[in-house]
Amino acid sequence: MHLFDQAIALAPLAEGRWQGRTSPEYANLVGPYGGILSACLMNAVLSDPRAAGDPVSITVNFCAAVPEGGYEIATRQIRAGKYLQHWSVELVSGGQICTTASIILAHRGADYSHQPVTAPVVPPAGECDLLDMAPMPMGWLHRYDFRFVEGPPPLSGLPTGGQGPARSVNWVADKPARPLDHLSLTSLSDSFLLRLFHVRGTLVPMGTVSMTTHFIATCEEIVEQGTAPVLGVADAIRFHGNFHDQHMQLWSASGKLLASGTQVVWFKQ
Amino acid sequence: MHLFDQAIALAPLAEGRWQGRTSPEYANLVGPYGGILSACLMNAVLSDPRAAGDPVSITVNFCAAVPEGGYEIATRQIRAGKYLQHWSVELVSGGQICTTASIILAHRGADYSHQPVTAPVVPPAGECDLLDMAPMPMGWLHRYDFRFVEGPPPLSGLPTGGQGPARSVNWVADKPARPLDHLSLTSLSDSFLLRLFHVRGTLVPMGTVSMTTHFIATCEEIVEQGTAPVLGVADAIRFHGNFHDQHMQLWSASGKLLASGTQVVWFKQ
Repeated sequence: MHLFDQAIALAPLAEGRWQGRTSPEYANLVGPYGGILSACLMNAVLSDPRAAGDPVSITVNFCAAVPEGGYEIATRQIRAGKYLQHWSVELVSGGQICTTASIILAHRGADYSHQPVTAPVVPPAGECDLLDMAPMPMGWLHRYDFRFVEGPPPLSGLPTGGQGPARSVNWVADKPARPLDHLSLTSLSDSFLLRLFHVRGTLVPMGTVSMTTHFIATCEEIVEQGTAPVLGVADAIRFHGNFHDQHMQLWSASGKLLASGTQVVWFKQ
Repeated sequence: MHLFDQAIALAPLAEGRWQGRTSPEYANLVGPYGGILSACLMNAVLSDPRAAGDPVSITVNFCAAVPEGGYEIATRQIRAGKYLQHWSVELVSGGQICTTASIILAHRGADYSHQPVTAPVVPPAGECDLLDMAPMPMGWLHRYDFRFVEGPPPLSGLPTGGQGPARSVNWVADKPARPLDHLSLTSLSDSFLLRLFHVRGTLVPMGTVSMTTHFIATCEEIVEQGTAPVLGVADAIRFHGNFHDQHMQLWSASGKLLASGTQVVWFKQ
């Protein structure tokens, strides 16, 4: 069983109640990597017998660090219509709500299709160097292969007084390889280091407070992607008053937008 | 009292319970304009005596059309920490949850500030023509002054077989003028017509299912903006399988990013 699937595994407790457990393999500096938590919340909804359709949207709010050990997830169906389902999800640990999420599923059909924006033109993943993440202490960074095409993270810092670019473009894939699905895509949507680190090159107190991902690709396209790396683009517009925006796109190897999203990041100093 | 403030007015019923009412002035094709609903949900949290800090994030999930008439809003504080508060909000009408939201407030201080992306270079609002929205039936469109710099909506349709650009840039202001605050900024974040209409020029069945806005500007900057128009940029990357993404930025008259966000839109045909 892949480490990713182990990390998001859930035991059903009752209708709409699930037991999960933090995984040191996907640890962040404080608590679990947000992507693995998001994938676990998505897994709870997709595992619910009432669930119908594929993921369209997930918003995850990181209210408090999830302590190491077991946690409980509650899935609540808010509405189930002809095309769409709305779910609210809460993760509780130590008697406290640590994470909330809203998740939308939908039945999709073949319909109007148009992609006015093209994927960045970059060399194929096989021609790009693997980034050595050894200097970084976070476990989750070692669960992915990163190959940067533009704006690699300044792992050894920046020249004094300098500011790096907020934008980065990179190939990314599960390590070891795992065929793409909506669960791994949910996790990948958080696989971009915080833009504050890209710009400043130092690890000051910072963390994502809310993250939203919208899924545009259909199941067929995700299956077609297989274990090939996906292309990630991330950028930020403004850092101000202890917060910055961060937006991202994930593109298939064949240049289709799989998902796009945004997060808002708190920082201090 | 400004029509906007009338439309988002709430009567307190008990701790965390509020009574509101739909306003024909801000009607959409079906149900209320999403921006006015979002502002009303934000108003409920900001009116709660337990609220502390300024808005940082709002995600609104449109689960069902809100019927004309009265509705009730429940505000629930999920977590209140030193810097941040997390809230969950539900709007109920006719015994059904029609809208859910998660809202984050924060205390902000003066800290690192950096804006690597500059606002689009455009003529000042005073030099741009007002768009005549008379052909459009939705009430809310008449509550704003729109002045397009790029990609005006194809109100009279597109040549057969043609596709318009998804991207638009426009000045927008409350009509009549009203000093900007987080409530009107919340509403303005939804003031972009759906990109599917920009691209296809026809009103097929479509609607936003989830919308997220992140606020980067501080209160001082919002006050400083006063009644001046804000500059809105909206775009979409891909329309596929009954959904499209739509992202936006709202810039101050002096070129600062006030807010950015994303929505996911369902469509059929």
